[in-house]
Amino acid sequence: MGKVILGATMSIDGFINDQSGSVQALYSDLAALRETEPLKESIQNTGAVVMGRNSFAMAEDPDLLAGNYEYQVPIFVLTHQPPEKHPKETDALTFTFVTDGIESAIRQAKTAAGDKDVTVIGAASTAQQCLRAGLADELHVDIMPMLLCAGLRLFEDLGMEQIQLERMQVTELPAGRTHLKFRIVK
Amino acid sequence: MGKVILGATMSIDGFINDQSGSVQALYSDLAALRETEPLKESIQNTGAVVMGRNSFAMAEDPDLLAGNYEYQVPIFVLTHQPPEKHPKETDALTFTFVTDGIESAIRQAKTAAGDKDVTVIGAASTAQQCLRAGLADELHVDIMPMLLCAGLRLFEDLGMEQIQLERMQVTELPAGRTHLKFRIVK
Repeated sequence: MGKVILGATMSIDGFINDQSGSVQALYSDLAALRETEPLKESIQNTGAVVMGRNSFAMAEDPDLLAGNYEYQVPIFVLTHQPPEKHPKETDALTFTFVTDGIESAIRQAKTAAGDKDVTVIGAASTAQQCLRAGLADELHVDIMPMLLCAGLRLFEDLGMEQIQLERMQVTELPAGRTHLKFRIVK
Repeated sequence: MGKVILGATMSIDGFINDQSGSVQALYSDLAALRETEPLKESIQNTGAVVMGRNSFAMAEDPDLLAGNYEYQVPIFVLTHQPPEKHPKETDALTFTFVTDGIESAIRQAKTAAGDKDVTVIGAASTAQQCLRAGLADELHVDIMPMLLCAGLRLFEDLGMEQIQLERMQVTELPAGRTHLKFRIVK
């Protein structure tokens, strides 16, 4: 059975997008990022992806994900309202819109992933639900060298007791991106 | 002329103390920390320290700072109300209580530091004032491997535009502490 990995990119002050909702400042290095070891490793180990409706909607044309998204695996989109038009799929990349919560999304993703990992794309709400439900085994946070000063916080109102982590690895990536891998102590 | 370095320790979710105001969870490694290169280097390069009233009050007995505090240098305490009893001093460690704001505290500390650096102990309010006033040259953040989930945030309500940083160095310290050094791009 694979692990459930919560992955996210944030500014050093904890924001995953800026005041206008744009993630662009945090992904100015996207082309270079795809060539880095942590992302290559993640792509290789990931058997299914869970993302929130916002991450899905961020793709300008969801039909293009089928051929181009980093993760060519089954994708489980947590949403209250599936889109009217089911986006294009391939044999590898399929979409399942999950309307009954994060536990269900992770459970379905685990089944799809088999021995591989489930990667949860940590836009804020999905990440928070995943942490609150105690479903993540690892937390992978990329810190970008900037203070966004406003926007959506990755870790907001968790309403939980403290969570201990164990640092597994730190990797300095191009463009000042620092990749921190933690095991979540349960 | 030395630099102004804003230093702080926070959990990965950005808190500098827990719900009860305690910093203990973030400094369980204090004894080991004193033996680490980044702190030794900071002690060697620091000619004066600026701290807020809360950091000062955190010393159980301020009189003990004179002999034991890591930084045996002039200390400038930003406060609205100097304590009634001036704490004990030595030739090296003196206290100046600054009541006319962060600019004044940094200016006085720079004079005292001469060619050496001014280290600003980044409890939240002091750090925020220092960033807002554009007075810091570098930001040194230690990230501890935990989600505190509540407490006081290091970066809160800055009310500023984005601030670009340049990653200078990343050091993995014991107890899962990760030291990130950034230059503040002005």
